[in-house]
Amino acid sequence: MPSISNKGLKMPESPIRKLVPYAEDAKKKGVKVFHLNIGQPDIKTPQIALDAVKNNKLEVVAYARSEGSETYRTKLAAYYAKNNISVNTNDIIVTTGGSEALLFTFGSIMDADDEVIIPEPFYANYNGFSIASGIKVIPVISKIEDNFALPPIEEFEKLITPKTKAILICNPGNPTGYLYSKEEIQKLATIVKKYDLFLIADEVYREFAYDGLEHYSVMQEKGLEQYTIMIDSVSKRYSMCGARIGCIVSKNTDVIATALKFAQARLSPPTYALIASEAALDTPQSYFDDVIDEYVDRRNTLITELEKIEGIKVAKPKGAFYCIAELPVENADHFAQWLLESFQLNNETIMVAPAAGFYATEGLGLNQVRIAYVLNKKDLIRSVQILKKALEAYNQ
Amino acid sequence: MPSISNKGLKMPESPIRKLVPYAEDAKKKGVKVFHLNIGQPDIKTPQIALDAVKNNKLEVVAYARSEGSETYRTKLAAYYAKNNISVNTNDIIVTTGGSEALLFTFGSIMDADDEVIIPEPFYANYNGFSIASGIKVIPVISKIEDNFALPPIEEFEKLITPKTKAILICNPGNPTGYLYSKEEIQKLATIVKKYDLFLIADEVYREFAYDGLEHYSVMQEKGLEQYTIMIDSVSKRYSMCGARIGCIVSKNTDVIATALKFAQARLSPPTYALIASEAALDTPQSYFDDVIDEYVDRRNTLITELEKIEGIKVAKPKGAFYCIAELPVENADHFAQWLLESFQLNNETIMVAPAAGFYATEGLGLNQVRIAYVLNKKDLIRSVQILKKALEAYNQ
Repeated sequence: MPSISNKGLKMPESPIRKLVPYAEDAKKKGVKVFHLNIGQPDIKTPQIALDAVKNNKLEVVAYARSEGSETYRTKLAAYYAKNNISVNTNDIIVTTGGSEALLFTFGSIMDADDEVIIPEPFYANYNGFSIASGIKVIPVISKIEDNFALPPIEEFEKLITPKTKAILICNPGNPTGYLYSKEEIQKLATIVKKYDLFLIADEVYREFAYDGLEHYSVMQEKGLEQYTIMIDSVSKRYSMCGARIGCIVSKNTDVIATALKFAQARLSPPTYALIASEAALDTPQSYFDDVIDEYVDRRNTLITELEKIEGIKVAKPKGAFYCIAELPVENADHFAQWLLESFQLNNETIMVAPAAGFYATEGLGLNQVRIAYVLNKKDLIRSVQILKKALEAYNQ
Repeated sequence: MPSISNKGLKMPESPIRKLVPYAEDAKKKGVKVFHLNIGQPDIKTPQIALDAVKNNKLEVVAYARSEGSETYRTKLAAYYAKNNISVNTNDIIVTTGGSEALLFTFGSIMDADDEVIIPEPFYANYNGFSIASGIKVIPVISKIEDNFALPPIEEFEKLITPKTKAILICNPGNPTGYLYSKEEIQKLATIVKKYDLFLIADEVYREFAYDGLEHYSVMQEKGLEQYTIMIDSVSKRYSMCGARIGCIVSKNTDVIATALKFAQARLSPPTYALIASEAALDTPQSYFDDVIDEYVDRRNTLITELEKIEGIKVAKPKGAFYCIAELPVENADHFAQWLLESFQLNNETIMVAPAAGFYATEGLGLNQVRIAYVLNKKDLIRSVQILKKALEAYNQ
């Protein structure tokens, strides 16, 4: 019998998804499961996007242009201009979600065994994309005590080798909720210029910056144009994760020309989702204002409630809709599975994402979980109650 | 300035797409372009699929399950059963098009520098997916004189090395239109068992078998269950190329479990397209009967008309909707570009795909083009007239 690849063996199970079968079993037993494990907001997709798909006039669901239509990319450029990011239609390649944007980016700039430095904890699927691309993630540790701020730049410098091709950040951060300051971005700018590296920034949570803080994009940094590659997606911005539309944005024409070849090989991003995404660009500002208010409220609720539980340590998020919580357990992986398999409070339980999978360094994050505050306030309060009781039962 | 990867440099331009800018320039000049270059049929998508999307009730366009919903995969398994392919819900991973299915397959069974043997000419993007995956395509030559039948099995055998992990076929073939017989599949079965290789079959044109011939799937071959991986897609079957829904089907549970990890990393196939694809499974048989009649008619028309042109050699397709034509030109690449840049007949021209990009062996296919008969009969006849006049002008 032929065997699978080493690459396949090394592919990690998604810490966000791997407990899904346990959750489904719990549901089959009639237990209600609150999903704090995945960044799937309950926020309604903008009506204008939903309507565009309902009213579509397609008779043949045809391929779209590999890089996305000129009209969509032109409208996207206008959206970026409103966000102080000056790019043109041709600086954009539309992709099937931010996931594909990152895969195309890795493929375009990195060869086998090349290295990308990423502050950890980081979005768990960066591990999977790296293994799929045959490259190596070199983690630099950020700490819950610092709210996961940028590690000292010397720590990055220590890790740079001839194999290093890029630094990758997620800003605002998933799973940390940390929003990098302009000063932090400028520190990264200095180092990528010094060592001739790309700076890849996953900015899919751009809109989700709280407490009056402004998001500072790597694309805003003058003189960094040839070094920066921005990853973006409609998933979170418009609460349409299932659309699967993202993009690569760069002023570096070599990067764009190369990413285009990857895009052409897979022919087309999904056509229906493009209709939704183009329409979504006309979403009124009031939608975002409401959404941000809602998330701030949820974050405040979640953090306040979590901090009431003895033995829990939380990093206060300034953006996105996640937080990392350190729990008074030894193995959060086991605890998370136990929550689904063996615990219920009045027939309800919660699903969280064990945080170890968000780290590349073995042994880190074992007692941490990522909590996505994508549920309404009432459900969040209830979820934290369940967590509190569960911890008591688990630690008895 | 940081540089792009060797992988990126090696990524081929798509022979199907690379002339698109020239076609757009021609259109801007008011020239009508008949598109024979891409497998984008003009056939209407089944109404039932179009309606399902128009009538969707989504309020949040949420992630789908990474491997596709249980209901969709169960209905897919029933569709396969009708096609004499016996598989279960759990033998299927739903992907973003056949493209992603092939990428996940390569990732699941092949490591860097591993080899896959493919009869050439083959679907050009196999080259791109191989480079993206860091693996090597080893071509085995099939010939226009034989209508591109399976090369002698000894020719495969000569190419097998310790690095060989799989043989990949496309059946019916893009770009050849060749339909492998049961006997040919059985020859492949013998060799993959003898050398412990996977047999990957891209069967996205399953329905498009003509002249009363029946498609024989690798999945029908007894005793081959652990060796076969089938790639499928809704793109051609339901004329919904832009949906981007495909799947991997295998009875080999290691392959499916590994492909699932790749699927989880990218979270979800596109949700709207899943709605269309699930609904499309209820397309009435009459739709396919009409479509097949139409394609047979088109094929007959195209071949008859092409054969009237002196100096053209064509392989008669038995399936899919492509044919390879050998033209009386030295460089079909140049000729195809010239057709768009410099030729018109009453303000009309044609776009074809130069065939060299469908070969891996340097120097093969230089005087060949792939013609997709995805236009109506009248347009096909007109297209061949244009080709005839163009060849006369080009060869003056």
